[in-house]
Amino acid sequence: MTVDKYIRDIQDFPKEGILFKDITPLLIDPSARKECLDILVSTLRDKGINKVIGVESRGFFFGTLLAQELNAGFVPVRKPNKLPYDTIAASYALEYGTDTLEIHTDAIQKGDRVLIHDDVLATGGTAKAVCELVEQLGGIIVQCNFIMELTFLNGREKLAQKDIFAAIKY
Amino acid sequence: MTVDKYIRDIQDFPKEGILFKDITPLLIDPSARKECLDILVSTLRDKGINKVIGVESRGFFFGTLLAQELNAGFVPVRKPNKLPYDTIAASYALEYGTDTLEIHTDAIQKGDRVLIHDDVLATGGTAKAVCELVEQLGGIIVQCNFIMELTFLNGREKLAQKDIFAAIKY
Repeated sequence: MTVDKYIRDIQDFPKEGILFKDITPLLIDPSARKECLDILVSTLRDKGINKVIGVESRGFFFGTLLAQELNAGFVPVRKPNKLPYDTIAASYALEYGTDTLEIHTDAIQKGDRVLIHDDVLATGGTAKAVCELVEQLGGIIVQCNFIMELTFLNGREKLAQKDIFAAIKY
Repeated sequence: MTVDKYIRDIQDFPKEGILFKDITPLLIDPSARKECLDILVSTLRDKGINKVIGVESRGFFFGTLLAQELNAGFVPVRKPNKLPYDTIAASYALEYGTDTLEIHTDAIQKGDRVLIHDDVLATGGTAKAVCELVEQLGGIIVQCNFIMELTFLNGREKLAQKDIFAAIKY
């Protein structure tokens, strides 16, 4: 597995004390990107996934690729006021304050088998909010997957009873 | 060509008087999405493209798919302070005020053959700014392509001498 060599550490981004994991070297290398996609897809065959959710905005990259590979619909989950049609929203706590995500109400049908994708699993707050949106619309969450998991932040605890997969664990 | 049937008109979004072209029905339908991708790729074979730029954030969807299909690197061009590594920036005029886009300085090498992708060609200001960023880094712009072109806004005029392609024209 060479994918982890294409993640670049950036000190103090977006603010001091944060070690940011930059995925742009992975996106720019066709072979590494393909390898990462294959790793993510390898656990998803024959699971009947028909919708893939990508979380704004770094979840859009591999989210669209996963949807294409699985021949599934792609659904963007976005920050407030970005989606133009009828939406529902879910809020989640940040270190200071809250953030909100929206989904189109017609994006998930009852019984849809859904993959949720984002670039990083950190504290799990974002993924949990997206799970709530999907389940509110009647979707079945087959897996939440990520390029990277920051295991020391215990994000999995917030996603109890969900199938979680990450290509790289830190 | 059925792709245009998957573009949804939204009245008065993001503000009154604007007829917004919503691509989420296209993203959610695997067949229509594949057809749109095939149309975009059909003009790009044997052009030696090795980098595909997707413009934040609706350009990320087909941008990543195009990069995958062409076995090229994917490069996100983003709003200010989103890219974590060294960047250069270009500003462009909006109806009121200006907007700015950034690219990583190591994303384009001199002589790279570049496809620029965004969802809509409107006035052309965004695409022109992205062209400037690519050329400043020594890249050769092979084509600017779009899902849709709003021809009545004359965006092509701002992109003189560039190869422009759009799957749908309004």
